[in-house]
Parts: sequence; C-alpha cells; structure tokens
Amino acid sequence: MKLQARLDRVLPLVRQASELALSYFGKFQGHKKSDHTVVSEADELVERLLVQGLQRRFPGETIVGEEGGATGPLQGPIWSVDPIDGTSAYLARLPHWGVSVGLLVGGRPVLGVVDLPLLGETCLAVAGRGAWMQTDRWGRQAMRVSPWSEPDSESMFCVPSDFHRCHEVHFPGKLRSLGSTVAHVLLVARGDACAALMRVHLWDLAGCAAILTEAGGRLETLDGSPLDLLELLPGAPFLPDVLASSPTGLAEMRKRVWKRAQGS
Amino acid sequence: MKLQARLDRVLPLVRQASELALSYFGKFQGHKKSDHTVVSEADELVERLLVQGLQRRFPGETIVGEEGGATGPLQGPIWSVDPIDGTSAYLARLPHWGVSVGLLVGGRPVLGVVDLPLLGETCLAVAGRGAWMQTDRWGRQAMRVSPWSEPDSESMFCVPSDFHRCHEVHFPGKLRSLGSTVAHVLLVARGDACAALMRVHLWDLAGCAAILTEAGGRLETLDGSPLDLLELLPGAPFLPDVLASSPTGLAEMRKRVWKRAQGS
Repeated sequence: MKLQARLDRVLPLVRQASELALSYFGKFQGHKKSDHTVVSEADELVERLLVQGLQRRFPGETIVGEEGGATGPLQGPIWSVDPIDGTSAYLARLPHWGVSVGLLVGGRPVLGVVDLPLLGETCLAVAGRGAWMQTDRWGRQAMRVSPWSEPDSESMFCVPSDFHRCHEVHFPGKLRSLGSTVAHVLLVARGDACAALMRVHLWDLAGCAAILTEAGGRLETLDGSPLDLLELLPGAPFLPDVLASSPTGLAEMRKRVWKRAQGS
Repeated sequence: MKLQARLDRVLPLVRQASELALSYFGKFQGHKKSDHTVVSEADELVERLLVQGLQRRFPGETIVGEEGGATGPLQGPIWSVDPIDGTSAYLARLPHWGVSVGLLVGGRPVLGVVDLPLLGETCLAVAGRGAWMQTDRWGRQAMRVSPWSEPDSESMFCVPSDFHRCHEVHFPGKLRSLGSTVAHVLLVARGDACAALMRVHLWDLAGCAAILTEAGGRLETLDGSPLDLLELLPGAPFLPDVLASSPTGLAEMRKRVWKRAQGS
C-alpha cells in the first residue's frame, strides 16, 4: 500500500483517538495519586483504540505500543503508537500533549501523524513528500527546520523537566519545558525552536521522526552517534539523551550541553 | 464604584484586547529581527486599546502600562495593564501568553482579569469574592492553591526560561517554563503547580496577584520579604526573584532555590 493511502487511513484514526483522550482531559484537579489511575485508564483506552484501528486497517502488520508491547514480528513495516505523549502535562491540565502514530520501514521513519488536540494542531509527514501542519488557526502550512544561526536571547531550546538535575548547558536563549517530547520535536520541525533534548522510547519518536526528517531536521544522541530507531524496539532500554535539530544545530548544540557529574 | 461593577466593565475590554492580540498571532515564522517589530506593534496596539478603554470607563483614574508608562497620579486606585504577557512565547507561536489587567488600591491587588485566548481560559478575581476561571472546555471553576505537600516526581515548579543561568534548585519534580509569568502564577492559583519563580514588573503581577491571593496563595521575594506591589511603580527596578506559592510553599521553596554565584 502506498504511503499516502496509509496516511489517509491513519489520520482519521488519530483524530478519533484525540477525541477520546480529550474526553478524559481535566477530569481531575491538582496532583493526587488517584489522578494517575485516571490517566493510566485514558492512556490504555486510547492505545487500545489505536492498536485495534491499525489492526483493522493494516492486518498482519506489527504494532508497538507504549502500554501493550508489540503485536507481530519485529520486522517488515512497524507501527508505533503513543496514546498520550506528555501524560504529566495532561494531568496538570497543560495543553502540550498529543496522540502520535508512526510507521518505520527497515528502521526508517516513513510516515508520521501527531495530533495536539488542545492546540488544534495536527502535524503530518510522508517520506519524500514533506511535512506539514494543519491548524485550526492557520490552515495548512509546510514545516521547515530553521537553518542554524548563533543562538541569541530569543532562541528556544526545549528540554526535559528534569534537565536541571541531569545536565548543564551554555545557551544564551530560552530553555522551555512544555511537558511533551513530541511537542518539543515538532517545535524544532516547524522552525520555532533551534533544538530539543529528550529521553526517548520508540513510541515517543516514531510519529515525529518522519516529520522532523521531512522538515529538514535530524536526530542523534548527545555523544554524536546517529540514532537507530530499531535499537529502541521493545526490550531495549530507552535512550536518555537524544538531540533534535538541524544538521548543523546538532553539532553546535553538542558542544553546549553536557551531563552533570551527579544529580543535585 | 463597587469592585464587581468594575469587573463587569473590564472583562469585555480584556476579551476585546485578546481578540486584537490574536489577530497578529502567528503572522511570522521562526525568529527574525523583523518579527520583533511585529510583536512590538501588536503590544503597542493592544496596550492602547486597553488604556483608552480604561480611561473611558474609569475617567481620571491612574493607569500604568508596560509600553507607555503611567497616566495619572501614583495614588488612589491604580490600574496596571500588560498587553501581551509572554511576548517571546507569542513570537514562537506557543499558547501560553495572555492579556492582563489588575487594579491596586492602597497597594493591595483587589481585582484581576487575565485572558489566555489560545487556551480559551479567562481567570478573574475580586477581593473577598474568590478567584475563578471561565474556560471553553470546563465552564466556570473556582481556583484554589493546592495545600503544600512534599514535592514528588510529579510536582510542578514553574521557572523563567533563563533559570539555568541564574539559579540552582533541589526539587524532585518537574521544572516547567512555558513562556509567560501570568500563566505560571495562574497554574499555582489553580492548584496545578506547587510554586512559580519569576522576575517581575508591576504589570506582570497586577492582574494575577489578586487572583493568586483570592485563591489562597501569596507572593514574596526569594529572600523571604513580603512583596509590596507599590515598590514596582514606574521608575522602580523590576524584582528579579519573586516566588508564588501557598504560604507554607513559600517557606519550603525558599530552602530549595538559590542564586548561582555567577551565570554560566
């Protein structure tokens, strides 16, 4: 099946999953143990909807989820779903969380759909056809990574919420932590952030890797190795330090970010 | 004029200002020098709308703005307006920015309206009558600061985007930097964040101080002094380190946050 035909089948499924996630959003206030149960329930229901929807649309193909592990062999086309990326943000009633589905073929991300329902933004990419966002506010726009320029006080670098414990950085601009890995990568892909640092599982990146790549960006580890998404298949540990940026940005940011000797 | 009657007059004005700010939002991509001119233009037009609207509704009363300084004597009721709090977030097409108006009487914040138009959230407070948010999604909800509990991995602390250069912190939870001082204070006021640290001018806090106070929160400087908003009147320097939290949270967070000896 052609990638565009796959995208046409996946997009309504992701939007349906977003609606389901939205129906649980904000049903809790503050930070209580019971809230985590609610979030887990939403996460599981949304994943089940995505996995069953993909199974119906693409019978026999492998699906890797956050909650449920893998169904099918770990070769051939591999779908990876992240039902709610940014569950802490979701729990805290912040807007940056999203539903994400990606397709890998031979380890290469070839299709990605990420929907951020509270922001009215859906980002899409198909290998060789570019990346674009469809928004309630601006309609359809191409996504392009910004060419590297020396960071200044307005430059944005997206970091995990525990960056202060794990890393140091020389950066004259703004560190932002919005609560969602996919949102951070998409901000790089659309040219608003110069880079993002994250710790990742396969499902965090499967959807946005194709979008970033098609927008002219790249992923690598903080030590400069290229990122092989197949190394993130179930059973593999997550990667603690992955950078997203333009090709030049990766090299430049690597010089500016380093691990702390110990947490503080 | 009673505070409730004042609120009824201010609320439609703030919503009108939000619409004007929205009409400029996203009219630029990436980070270019020319964009700052656009943002300044939006900032100035929104402030003019607010100042003129307040002058019409409350003739002769003092108005302090971000862009235009003060009109009127620095005593009696003092209005303070922040046309677009979070201009960097606005420029980067992030959702956390807002239009804010507050009223001080004798230095005490007695009325506040903050609208976050992209999030569909309007937060309001009148002294003695509580704080509440009106949202597209959840309707009307009371705002309450969360009672202090020992921070854990899910606790949220909102910090400025240059926190990494200026401060150190012992905090086991999530540092978030969303791009707007008022948004950070409102997250404390509604019980989703346990504390926020910020550098402030009067206009940053005038609108959200009444909301935070009515929600059971408090502001003080990082060295433990109570905050006198009148010290922030035009001509005064901004305050670099102001904490917002519950009364217990202020004391607890003061032990956990300190200034770096020097920027890095």
